[in-house]
Amino acid sequence: MKRKRLVILGSTGSIGTSTLDVVSSRPEAFQVAGLAAGRNLELLIEQAERFHPEVVGVGDEDLAREARSRLGRGTRVLHGPEGLEAIGRHEDVDTVVCGLVGAVGLRPTWAAIDAGRNVALANKEALVVGGAHLTARAKETGATILPVDSEHNAVHQCLRGEHMHEVRGLWLTASGGPFRARATHTLAEASPEEALRHPTWTMGRKITIDSATLMNKGLEVIEAHWLFGLEADRIHVVIHPQSVVHSMVELVDGSFKAQLGVTDMRQPIQYALTWPERWPSALPRFDPVAASPLEFEHPDPDRFPCLGLAYRALRSGGAAAAVVNAANEVAVQAFLDGSARFTDIARVIETALERHGGDPAHGLDDLVAADRRARETTARVLADGVRT
Amino acid sequence: MKRKRLVILGSTGSIGTSTLDVVSSRPEAFQVAGLAAGRNLELLIEQAERFHPEVVGVGDEDLAREARSRLGRGTRVLHGPEGLEAIGRHEDVDTVVCGLVGAVGLRPTWAAIDAGRNVALANKEALVVGGAHLTARAKETGATILPVDSEHNAVHQCLRGEHMHEVRGLWLTASGGPFRARATHTLAEASPEEALRHPTWTMGRKITIDSATLMNKGLEVIEAHWLFGLEADRIHVVIHPQSVVHSMVELVDGSFKAQLGVTDMRQPIQYALTWPERWPSALPRFDPVAASPLEFEHPDPDRFPCLGLAYRALRSGGAAAAVVNAANEVAVQAFLDGSARFTDIARVIETALERHGGDPAHGLDDLVAADRRARETTARVLADGVRT
Repeated sequence: MKRKRLVILGSTGSIGTSTLDVVSSRPEAFQVAGLAAGRNLELLIEQAERFHPEVVGVGDEDLAREARSRLGRGTRVLHGPEGLEAIGRHEDVDTVVCGLVGAVGLRPTWAAIDAGRNVALANKEALVVGGAHLTARAKETGATILPVDSEHNAVHQCLRGEHMHEVRGLWLTASGGPFRARATHTLAEASPEEALRHPTWTMGRKITIDSATLMNKGLEVIEAHWLFGLEADRIHVVIHPQSVVHSMVELVDGSFKAQLGVTDMRQPIQYALTWPERWPSALPRFDPVAASPLEFEHPDPDRFPCLGLAYRALRSGGAAAAVVNAANEVAVQAFLDGSARFTDIARVIETALERHGGDPAHGLDDLVAADRRARETTARVLADGVRT
Repeated sequence: MKRKRLVILGSTGSIGTSTLDVVSSRPEAFQVAGLAAGRNLELLIEQAERFHPEVVGVGDEDLAREARSRLGRGTRVLHGPEGLEAIGRHEDVDTVVCGLVGAVGLRPTWAAIDAGRNVALANKEALVVGGAHLTARAKETGATILPVDSEHNAVHQCLRGEHMHEVRGLWLTASGGPFRARATHTLAEASPEEALRHPTWTMGRKITIDSATLMNKGLEVIEAHWLFGLEADRIHVVIHPQSVVHSMVELVDGSFKAQLGVTDMRQPIQYALTWPERWPSALPRFDPVAASPLEFEHPDPDRFPCLGLAYRALRSGGAAAAVVNAANEVAVQAFLDGSARFTDIARVIETALERHGGDPAHGLDDLVAADRRARETTARVLADGVRT
């Protein structure tokens, strides 16, 4: 069997390291052709020495110089956004894993789709910002987008053998995060440490805060719209604190199909890498009795205003989702830095949505511009002090 | 669109009337070509007057005479086992619904499969007794067996788009019946009224008692073996008191897929009738929040000895499953008649299995003979009085 050639964008992050775990479990099946990271040079070099990629990407020229001096001449070193894009288009690759965090993943994801690659996409923000363009381009180039987010991966699995015209709706599950049961009036005082204490999943910092606000689920609703083509009214969110039902599909005949499993990202990553096949996995087996009981509840819109803002952006269309996403990235960083409160996140996103949601959105350049304006506005509003 | 032509064997029973409900909801899509019942002539005549079948079947010649006198000359009336078989082979039929109860369904099911029909099979005993022969014949004639039992129907749905070599196991759910939490030492005193009080499903009397002993699930394990080709060790039973997860499939990559829905047999019946399509259903929508929490537990082998007997029969092969099924039918009837205790059911099945489990099983005739001997033995053991 020819080994599957992979590129991993964001190799030192949570998705990237889990992907390399999966690769290590089947070294005879995978070949790492390219790796790209931001600033974690030590780990990237370690990965490169272990997996021998043909090309690596780093954040800037200084890091590139250091990487070159430490890696053998067999590895090309690129840097910056152009480097990411070039690695996204790297030749003769079967699957590009997009594990970047935030809108920075937009252009490299575009590059991989433009080159007709299979894209294992964990970088939901790329679809949130540029979903219309990315999915249209994928149709033209024959690129397949395989969702790595556990929810969309679950939907993808449930849709095997089904026809989209026989689907009534999608049910994305949300753990509810650390603040599911906390008194709403105390959320303004929630600390980053508290918000980072996710009950079920171990993930990167940004997505963990997004899980506490439910903006993560909001972005996933938008992502689901672009991946599966359903309107906002047919994409439901349900709180499921145990995080073992990864999502569900409702069919027109009333039947629901759910995908369940361990809360380990290596499961959906492996699925995306081996699709359309399924390969045996060495993960601990899922035990429905140990996971019992499984609970479902409706999300509280007052506790989780970010979810409503995401639906509003999806219904508005155009640049609105890009604006919500950009404002969220800035606000989450400010919260993590201690310069904004937890409840400020939704407030500044709403302001950005009102000011820039109707900005032009004719192509990626427009969306990148709307993203930039939303970031500037959000930073300014945060610096001016937000209403309390 | 050409209407789907249906034959319904057992039209006055629980599955039969639910099937006619589904037919009534889409009169433009279905045409009832044949109906067969046992002794409930009043209901059969009512059904015939409403759905205008070309042929009906009744239990014996006296009933046939009465049916002829009451139905118009447009309807042929057949009777007895030969009548059932003839209706199973009725010409130009798309799907034969086998809603008969017990091993009596074996030969009509064979007839439908032999004629190459799609068979919507609710009569699990036919597969339990003659699974090896029925499934082999279906391969030869191109007949498709579509399981109507909610569990196997769920598995069928979960397997859409999957490959059997990528399936690790099946998880059949069981409500646990009315005696799931009752003190085991009091089961000998359980009355038919108590055993008929099923917590979640409204079904016929025989299957409801089988649900209380878990023999129903045991027969379903055997049925699943024949439908999906997995060995006993890969077919699991898990108690799920809410009966909304109808069953699950475990894939080799660790992923589970589950089918969920309302506890209404019209859902799996419609699926079997419209397959490979799914048609909109007028059933109440399933609500995962209202159904929450969903619990799973391991079945207690001491409380439910019938389950272990069914696994033993499946592992033995040959006539063993036919013997267990026959002894169970006799014992359940005796329990319903008040001539056997609830705990006698498992005991007399074990005796029959020990005496006849190794009987010849080279064809349907052998199996029918083993079935007969097991019934005789069971009746004799019951008449002699069983150990207490």
